[in-house]
Amino acid sequence: MNDLPEKFDELTGREFLERIWAGPGASPLGILLNMRLIEVGDGSATFEAIPSRKFYNPQQRCHGGFAATLIDSALGCAVQSKLGRGVRYGTVELKVNYIRPIFEETGRLTCAGKVVHAGRRMSTAEARVIDAAGKLYAHGSVTFMVFDP
Amino acid sequence: MNDLPEKFDELTGREFLERIWAGPGASPLGILLNMRLIEVGDGSATFEAIPSRKFYNPQQRCHGGFAATLIDSALGCAVQSKLGRGVRYGTVELKVNYIRPIFEETGRLTCAGKVVHAGRRMSTAEARVIDAAGKLYAHGSVTFMVFDP
Amino acid sequence: MNDLPEKFDELTGREFLERIWAGPGASPLGILLNMRLIEVGDGSATFEAIPSRKFYNPQQRCHGGFAATLIDSALGCAVQSKLGRGVRYGTVELKVNYIRPIFEETGRLTCAGKVVHAGRRMSTAEARVIDAAGKLYAHGSVTFMVFDP
Amino acid sequence: MNDLPEKFDELTGREFLERIWAGPGASPLGILLNMRLIEVGDGSATFEAIPSRKFYNPQQRCHGGFAATLIDSALGCAVQSKLGRGVRYGTVELKVNYIRPIFEETGRLTCAGKVVHAGRRMSTAEARVIDAAGKLYAHGSVTFMVFDP
Repeated sequence: MNDLPEKFDELTGREFLERIWAGPGASPLGILLNMRLIEVGDGSATFEAIPSRKFYNPQQRCHGGFAATLIDSALGCAVQSKLGRGVRYGTVELKVNYIRPIFEETGRLTCAGKVVHAGRRMSTAEARVIDAAGKLYAHGSVTFMVFDP
Repeated sequence: MNDLPEKFDELTGREFLERIWAGPGASPLGILLNMRLIEVGDGSATFEAIPSRKFYNPQQRCHGGFAATLIDSALGCAVQSKLGRGVRYGTVELKVNYIRPIFEETGRLTCAGKVVHAGRRMSTAEARVIDAAGKLYAHGSVTFMVFDP
Repeated sequence: MNDLPEKFDELTGREFLERIWAGPGASPLGILLNMRLIEVGDGSATFEAIPSRKFYNPQQRCHGGFAATLIDSALGCAVQSKLGRGVRYGTVELKVNYIRPIFEETGRLTCAGKVVHAGRRMSTAEARVIDAAGKLYAHGSVTFMVFDP
Repeated sequence: MNDLPEKFDELTGREFLERIWAGPGASPLGILLNMRLIEVGDGSATFEAIPSRKFYNPQQRCHGGFAATLIDSALGCAVQSKLGRGVRYGTVELKVNYIRPIFEETGRLTCAGKVVHAGRRMSTAEARVIDAAGKLYAHGSVTFMVFDP
């Protein structure tokens, strides 16, 4: 948390998402893994991801870390969309259920995340990863700790 | 699972790890994320990972997906080391607890995974992610389904 | 699984729920913990539970095991409602998020569970525990293995 | 948390465990489910549990809530053993992996829990449930929030 943009403390979570995430280089790992925030609501966020052989494991399908990263991203933004000015958060735990293997041929995936509980100290959220036809590939939940200064 | 090396069905899990993982391009996502299998035992496996700003999230620390990928990798190999010839497996669910933020300055991490239960249809395993000084950054567990042909 | 009613193999999951669960003594732990199946749908099930000081932990609120039992019950029935004749299932893993403490004064809770994925070998489901006013106390997910004879 | 013994705030976690848990009626749910704290260490705790048909589900084996309660109990005490005077804690999330069905005939189980990380705001711990022969029936992990006044 040592290198946040200077203006971070002046922004609400939603403003941070709209200004920072949208910028170039906002999420280096997201760029590396073809993932992009495409929608933010009040307590919700949707990412898209384009699977590639570059994200494969030795079993020649997308590594479990690919869907885990996607779910953590969408849920982090869903929770952040509810945060007030200068409030920070961190992932406490992440749980992913893998339903089907993801291949490059699977094509564009979206991951919609929704806050289940937005508390003063703790928030939880759930997400699903689906393809263009609505088929389910993974789902998961995350617990976040919230730090209100 | 459509593109496994032809010889896969003739190898035990341990042979697969020793011959395939060790080869170039074995794990594209592992290469992309600076992760590497450094040790395989009977029901155990250790990965190393070198954190980098390339793996950061917008909060300017390593994305939760980084540790999730590392834990899934180590535990997949730990479970695979126990599998007989031609037996396949897939991640059913992954759970990660995040203890401390990981920065580029954190330096080389290792993730040692151990099988807790190796069953005919299901295996479980646990891992810890530590730095050179033994400090804990994350830990987690994975459930794998095992497919014995 | 050694003592199932003789007719089990002739019943679908839904028939089992309607005939067996409804009977006296169907779920000894459910009776002990004031929990009762009140509704079964196609891939969904709702339980009610009446908190009591008998279910407290030494911190003088309902033990975490109380909500865990409730969620496992509702989700087991939700999954079972989708199973064909003679198909069996077992809980592989259970994950519960605790949102608020439950006291005797909290009064009647309901836990609605819904199948997220009903597969041939594996099913997953999610549930929420709420009070009469709709306030959230816990939520969770379960992975079940399915055994099709 | 409204009804704690008056002296709670003067006790360390370990003293609380030794004086309160040991007393009659300390854990009403523990008594109901044949569970008992048998050992406390520095960051560890062991429970015993005697399975009974009273804890069965309709599938005629011990309900998943039985092992979940046992694991939450052992891990709560393991974490509590590290807490200073007047510090409180609550379960944030519980994760259980079920390895084998538990029957009345399984006999006495023990559940040993160990703290993995004891933090100022958050603690995590892991446990295993085994029978007299050391056979594994379930294992799990818990995240606790810690409230230092």
